[in-house]
Amino acid sequence: NIKEQGSQPLSQETVKELIKQSQEAKKHAYCRYSKFRVGAALLTNENRVFTGCNVENACYNLGICAERTAIAKAVSEGYITFKAIAIASDVSEKFITPCGGCRQFMREFGSDWDVYLSKPDGSCLKMTVDELLPVSFGPEDLYMEKVFDIDNKY
Amino acid sequence: NIKEQGSQPLSQETVKELIKQSQEAKKHAYCRYSKFRVGAALLTNENRVFTGCNVENACYNLGICAERTAIAKAVSEGYITFKAIAIASDVSEKFITPCGGCRQFMREFGSDWDVYLSKPDGSCLKMTVDELLPVSFGPEDLYMEKVFDIDNKY
Amino acid sequence: NIKEQGSQPLSQETVKELIKQSQEAKKHAYCRYSKFRVGAALLTNENRVFTGCNVENACYNLGICAERTAIAKAVSEGYITFKAIAIASDVSEKFITPCGGCRQFMREFGSDWDVYLSKPDGSCLKMTVDELLPVSFGPEDLYMEKVFDIDNKY
Amino acid sequence: NIKEQGSQPLSQETVKELIKQSQEAKKHAYCRYSKFRVGAALLTNENRVFTGCNVENACYNLGICAERTAIAKAVSEGYITFKAIAIASDVSEKFITPCGGCRQFMREFGSDWDVYLSKPDGSCLKMTVDELLPVSFGPEDLYMEKVFDIDNKY
Ligand SMILES: [Zn+2]
Ligand SMILES: [Zn+2]
Ligand SMILES: [Zn+2]
Ligand SMILES: [Zn+2]
Repeated sequence: NIKEQGSQPLSQETVKELIKQSQEAKKHAYCRYSKFRVGAALLTNENRVFTGCNVENACYNLGICAERTAIAKAVSEGYITFKAIAIASDVSEKFITPCGGCRQFMREFGSDWDVYLSKPDGSCLKMTVDELLPVSFGPEDLYMEKVFDIDNKY
Repeated sequence: NIKEQGSQPLSQETVKELIKQSQEAKKHAYCRYSKFRVGAALLTNENRVFTGCNVENACYNLGICAERTAIAKAVSEGYITFKAIAIASDVSEKFITPCGGCRQFMREFGSDWDVYLSKPDGSCLKMTVDELLPVSFGPEDLYMEKVFDIDNKY
Repeated sequence: NIKEQGSQPLSQETVKELIKQSQEAKKHAYCRYSKFRVGAALLTNENRVFTGCNVENACYNLGICAERTAIAKAVSEGYITFKAIAIASDVSEKFITPCGGCRQFMREFGSDWDVYLSKPDGSCLKMTVDELLPVSFGPEDLYMEKVFDIDNKY
Repeated sequence: NIKEQGSQPLSQETVKELIKQSQEAKKHAYCRYSKFRVGAALLTNENRVFTGCNVENACYNLGICAERTAIAKAVSEGYITFKAIAIASDVSEKFITPCGGCRQFMREFGSDWDVYLSKPDGSCLKMTVDELLPVSFGPEDLYMEKVFDIDNKY
């Protein structure tokens, strides 16, 4: 657990700790196909931390990213509002960024929370989910009025 | 934790407990689109239990099933060998069965472990991963000799 | 187009032609990550053939398999009932088999149609979708009566 | 086929035609679960058009979006460089936007091409793939130097 007040920005210490936990999570990466380790640490509104790593599959497209693992883990324990997620990889040339699938998975739980893109030395760049996925497609879009309503023909 | 000996079949008590945990996990299902709750409870070789539920997305195809959540959770904590997984839903007419994607995700970690398909009353049907996914495509297939080797043209 | 009568078994010639087309489709595989080429050729009830190949992604889990490409292609042109699909790879040691995700994608359009697993020499093994995905989860399962109905709490 | 010169911006007429084709493709949407029809029309550098629709699955997360269908279709026919893609839905309140998964699937084939978000009345908004998926994770990221190289322990 990380102690952190409500809607305040995270303290430097908390960010540092979150990145450290994402780096620890990276050690469990099951990435025998890509050899590309990724770790994630998710901070809930209740200051609980859930970590994740990538879990690959022989059928490449059935694997799960680190970020989605961390989020699914939190949801399965009853946590669905988040303050921030930190992401770690072994690449030092640039801050690791989430794939589009993970951005969409994050966005399901709100657009206005933070993503810390990190490097192995612990340095990081903060972006919001909304900045990473502008003009996003979200839950409310599914329920907008449609000009043509489909009957279930099946 | 569930106490259980190595490669022995699970005791009735253990199976009952595993199914109960899958039913508990179901309560956390984030299934606002399908309204179809699924829970899973995974027993590792070390007798640790990891639970999961489905976590859906406004972009339907980016959601994650309960079984995959439970497995990714275990892997992200360092557990990659499994004895059994129990699956629960709200359907009482038939034993709930895993989708093909989850069968493939299970198979990554071996073909010879058990899947308990359950009903809300706790009754269950046991099948192995191999029975659920016969003549499967697995990790070793990727490394078989090929008659034509591709250079990376990109 | 392949000429073939209604619910009769496919002629040897038709099977041979379908496998040949799956091998041709394999040449378009965009598989820069796995270097594992797969091709598929799908025969609709109307005797139209749609081919597919794997299309991979830098985020491994966002790629699409050859079988799903072929099926999505047919559906997008208005064809949703199928007689058979042939699958080809470069592996000669065994008949290539579809992943669990593709078996589920096939099953959406019925359990009782044929999958031809082939080798580069054109030899093949026929299985039905149902044999590849026993006790499957299908469209009708979603609408079964549930012991607990969820209100949309979101 | 649409006639259009190399790297010039698309003519109004071409855009109009592309949107019309995405609306036509929408009619084939297999969306019995979401009842949310989506169509897409992709223009290749060679001025070929490939259309797609969403193809859903009883296991929601195994479906495929319209945009990915159109792109996989083009790739499976040998086309891998694109000028633009148009997207259509039945929602008139806002321009329909692609999910994060599709943005990532587009980005595999370059960041600098156009996405036309449309409404049923044919009006549209143009954005580039890069604008829709800023600081993206792409093919080259996988091959960047890593501070820690993993041996294949499996
Ligand atoms: Zn991702
Ligand atoms: Zn599943
Ligand atoms: Zn597949
Ligand atoms: Zn999409």
